[in-house]
Amino acid sequence: MGERLPKWKALAIFSSDALSSVGYGPEQIALVLAVSGLVAYGYYPYAFLTVLILLAIVTASYTQVARANPGGGGSYSVARKNLGEYPSLVAAAALFADYVLTVAVSICAGTQALVSAFPTLQGREVSIDLVVLFGILTLINLRGVRESAHVFVLPTYLFVLGMLGLIITGVYQALTGPGPVFPPASLARQELDWMMLALVLRAFANGCSSMTGLEAISNGVPMFKQPEHVNAIKTTYWMSGLLAVMLTGISFLLLHYHVMPIAHVTMLSQIAEQTVGRGWFYYYIQMATMLILFLAANTAYNGLPPLLSLLAQDGYMPRYLGMRGERLSFSNGILLLSLVAGLLIIGFNGDVEHLISLYAIGVFLSFTIAQSGMVVHWWRQKNRNWGRRALVNGFGATITGIVVVVIAVSKFFAGAWIVLIFIPAMMFVFKKIKKHYLDMAEQLHLPLEEGPYSIKPVGKHYVVVPVASPTRVVAETMRYAKKIGDEIIALHIATDKETARRVEEKWRQWNPEVNLVTVYSPYRLVIQPLLHFVEKLTRRKQPEDYITVVIPEFETRKWWHRLLHNQTGLVLRTLLIFNKNVAVTTLPFHLQK
Amino acid sequence: MGERLPKWKALAIFSSDALSSVGYGPEQIALVLAVSGLVAYGYYPYAFLTVLILLAIVTASYTQVARANPGGGGSYSVARKNLGEYPSLVAAAALFADYVLTVAVSICAGTQALVSAFPTLQGREVSIDLVVLFGILTLINLRGVRESAHVFVLPTYLFVLGMLGLIITGVYQALTGPGPVFPPASLARQELDWMMLALVLRAFANGCSSMTGLEAISNGVPMFKQPEHVNAIKTTYWMSGLLAVMLTGISFLLLHYHVMPIAHVTMLSQIAEQTVGRGWFYYYIQMATMLILFLAANTAYNGLPPLLSLLAQDGYMPRYLGMRGERLSFSNGILLLSLVAGLLIIGFNGDVEHLISLYAIGVFLSFTIAQSGMVVHWWRQKNRNWGRRALVNGFGATITGIVVVVIAVSKFFAGAWIVLIFIPAMMFVFKKIKKHYLDMAEQLHLPLEEGPYSIKPVGKHYVVVPVASPTRVVAETMRYAKKIGDEIIALHIATDKETARRVEEKWRQWNPEVNLVTVYSPYRLVIQPLLHFVEKLTRRKQPEDYITVVIPEFETRKWWHRLLHNQTGLVLRTLLIFNKNVAVTTLPFHLQK
Repeated sequence: MGERLPKWKALAIFSSDALSSVGYGPEQIALVLAVSGLVAYGYYPYAFLTVLILLAIVTASYTQVARANPGGGGSYSVARKNLGEYPSLVAAAALFADYVLTVAVSICAGTQALVSAFPTLQGREVSIDLVVLFGILTLINLRGVRESAHVFVLPTYLFVLGMLGLIITGVYQALTGPGPVFPPASLARQELDWMMLALVLRAFANGCSSMTGLEAISNGVPMFKQPEHVNAIKTTYWMSGLLAVMLTGISFLLLHYHVMPIAHVTMLSQIAEQTVGRGWFYYYIQMATMLILFLAANTAYNGLPPLLSLLAQDGYMPRYLGMRGERLSFSNGILLLSLVAGLLIIGFNGDVEHLISLYAIGVFLSFTIAQSGMVVHWWRQKNRNWGRRALVNGFGATITGIVVVVIAVSKFFAGAWIVLIFIPAMMFVFKKIKKHYLDMAEQLHLPLEEGPYSIKPVGKHYVVVPVASPTRVVAETMRYAKKIGDEIIALHIATDKETARRVEEKWRQWNPEVNLVTVYSPYRLVIQPLLHFVEKLTRRKQPEDYITVVIPEFETRKWWHRLLHNQTGLVLRTLLIFNKNVAVTTLPFHLQK
Repeated sequence: MGERLPKWKALAIFSSDALSSVGYGPEQIALVLAVSGLVAYGYYPYAFLTVLILLAIVTASYTQVARANPGGGGSYSVARKNLGEYPSLVAAAALFADYVLTVAVSICAGTQALVSAFPTLQGREVSIDLVVLFGILTLINLRGVRESAHVFVLPTYLFVLGMLGLIITGVYQALTGPGPVFPPASLARQELDWMMLALVLRAFANGCSSMTGLEAISNGVPMFKQPEHVNAIKTTYWMSGLLAVMLTGISFLLLHYHVMPIAHVTMLSQIAEQTVGRGWFYYYIQMATMLILFLAANTAYNGLPPLLSLLAQDGYMPRYLGMRGERLSFSNGILLLSLVAGLLIIGFNGDVEHLISLYAIGVFLSFTIAQSGMVVHWWRQKNRNWGRRALVNGFGATITGIVVVVIAVSKFFAGAWIVLIFIPAMMFVFKKIKKHYLDMAEQLHLPLEEGPYSIKPVGKHYVVVPVASPTRVVAETMRYAKKIGDEIIALHIATDKETARRVEEKWRQWNPEVNLVTVYSPYRLVIQPLLHFVEKLTRRKQPEDYITVVIPEFETRKWWHRLLHNQTGLVLRTLLIFNKNVAVTTLPFHLQK
């Protein structure tokens, strides 16, 4: 994307992930405090204000990331540059978890917004989730719509407008209405014993999910208009400001109406219904919420390929993922992301509350690492103001680090353990892949002074041409084989004596000056007999001899015709590779209709 | 499977699909008659007895299929031999629909049996369905467990024992108990107006789902002990007899207890609970029902590959599916089956009742075609008793044909329309594939008298070797290239000038007597520049010249290392095929660790 983005557009493009968490963040705090038998909404403000303060700290820290990394680059790059290998791999693993959970959580929350508005859909949540995941997001991303970023602008502003309208209306009604602003039930709280404290901590940990996606702008600094980092920082402030206002407004209304959890209906839907009734504005809010949440899920699809590419260039992921712009690489990443997100949705039955337990920990882990990396960055640079800047990031790192521990402990059994196993497991995979590439480089190394011809030249070259019956394709293949080989072997695999006799007869009439070898395969197998034949030939030949199997591949006129061919070649290549000095050549043959 | 099966074993192996329908068949009749506001269980016996008579007719017809086709072969083969192309394609399409729906319906019904027993799982049905489908059945079948048939024996008999035990206990209690055998509510019925008649017909159409799987034995005649067809026929009688007894018993108890639909609890579970209480025997019945239903789903995985293979041999499906025993072919079929079944489960939200509307029509369509084919068969043979035999099958064909119309009309809007669109669509695909193969055969034809050398020999042979940096692999590749080519071109794709200079320097030192061509690719693309280079070369060369691109493929020590390589070769082959006379050769290189 060559075009630079004005701030208003960039805000919409980068903030759908962060802003959409208004759709579930406040609810996630309230859910913990509404545990049956306990009325503890009185603690809501404590949990919520802590989240808000944390938001301010993380925002301040990330404006500095934007300042220091005008080239973009997330917590992985920051850690790699400043903290070394292991922290960067922790960050990469955490980001992986983050992307997968962004998809799973956002889709499930979006579906809940939809189902709240249309109760007939109740009980079909998982099915809807999966249709959105595989039927919409995966397909769109596999098709590879490049300019898709601009699609974000309208829904994001529609959502923000709707939220602000809802909040203004609701707060006005609350302040001018006859009842109390906060009903006593919303202020009730029990004594703060250890169990209660644990509950409030859990509520806070859940609320931290409101902060996911905050790092997006700092990853996209190069896309801003000049001066890039100034504009990026201003946009970050706007995003966090909007997020804070919306979270506060919704929290206010949640307490004002004393919203309690109802199955299949989100709290945001209850708030909207109580404020404006079930009219057009209610449906507008639900649809806008659904839309921004699905768009938030989509951001993960844009975020994962660049991360994979960076990891691949450093040797921690398969090398071919490092080739930018290659469709196939992206497809693999997209499918992997969808598959894992789909498994999570099925495993957690589309339950946002349970998925949230996994979500926040990865996010805050990568926050912590990025901030720590920034401290080292400022300390190394020792520019003007480096002390103050290091202090801001150091404070951010400390606080987010503490949050990681709080989440890990308070949500351990609720699912955080999965992430705590996943991250080291991923690191193990990263290291294993790296080791393989290092081993390989060593094996491939050829001392320059030895020269390329320290290896003996090729001896005899056998060429095997499989023949079903003498056709034009066989003729062309034989012509190519004659050009490259010393000895040509035409191989016919026959299912019965009768066909074998007929093919041999035809071959004699045709007289291509090449011997036809017939091999019998009574069970209609094709691949196995060919493999056996090549293996027998391998044992007969000298070490320097080569065998090439030439297989015609059909280039068809219509795309779907390709599905009707070419499988044999693929299988053969996969199986013949185990033999030393056996090459497989595919020869194109163009069908005219 | 070389071993012949004794009757008791064959019964278990072939009948899990048919017998398992006891798990949902009676319920499906009752569901229609329990539509809110109407109490119409009084019509249950009418619908049910019609199903039972139909069962007798179809059984008699299929014993004759078993007699006439000692080689096995389902309705597709029968139709192809006796009725011609179009009826056979209708049968094939109907069988496709049948297999997919067997998987979907059986899994959903099995999950319902599980959830009925363990109410904590309520609301998670779709997730469980998908885990069973993709996490268990698909994986097991992809692994390709060959001797899996024997796994069927124990669960099938456990299920039959459980059902008989339940029925005997229940009927004894009903007859000896204080209350009436049938409560008045179960005998109530409204006047039979047109609407009521439509309802009873729908109940009957639903009940026909109890007959799915009845054809299984006639497809497997060659697996019986000698005399095969005699044993097969006896086993068919046993299967149908058992099915009839179980269906009747469960229907009796359903009316006796006046079981009404309850969300998340099957009627069979209600019956079991009322008869024996929620003790071990209740859980035994639920688990046995679940197990046999999942096994029934599995039978479709065994049935589809042979059908695909037959269709492929006749040219209606991709040819490579006709190669028996090739793992890849089976995998494609298995994945396709799972995928479509998964989509149906998601689309219908795991609802057995809605899926049933699609199910019965395909089954009865293939019944009808098989029976019609048999009539032609007897008429052509004109053996002893041919008139009587033709009459039996003719009667069967007529009745099942009427049932097809009844189901199609009474369930049209409930989902039968999907199948009625699917079948012609599949036939269109079959015909299109056949046409492609016929076109191809024509293009490949080479008149024998012309001889193989009517085509000009190959002119100059260019060999392109991509070089990242001079390594041992490049050296081996060059050695092969020298053997086969007239002109070798080493091609380096550089992302920046600096690396390019370094590689060129090394190349010069190395001195392999081959020119190195450097192409710049600033965006880290690899495939595109190579394609462009080859295309440029293609334009320069003579029509008879050939270009071969040689790509090393790594054979790795550990299986997962393969995932780290080889992608470039695959992509190149896919893209280079569009150029005339451009071959792609993969050369194996074995890594030692």
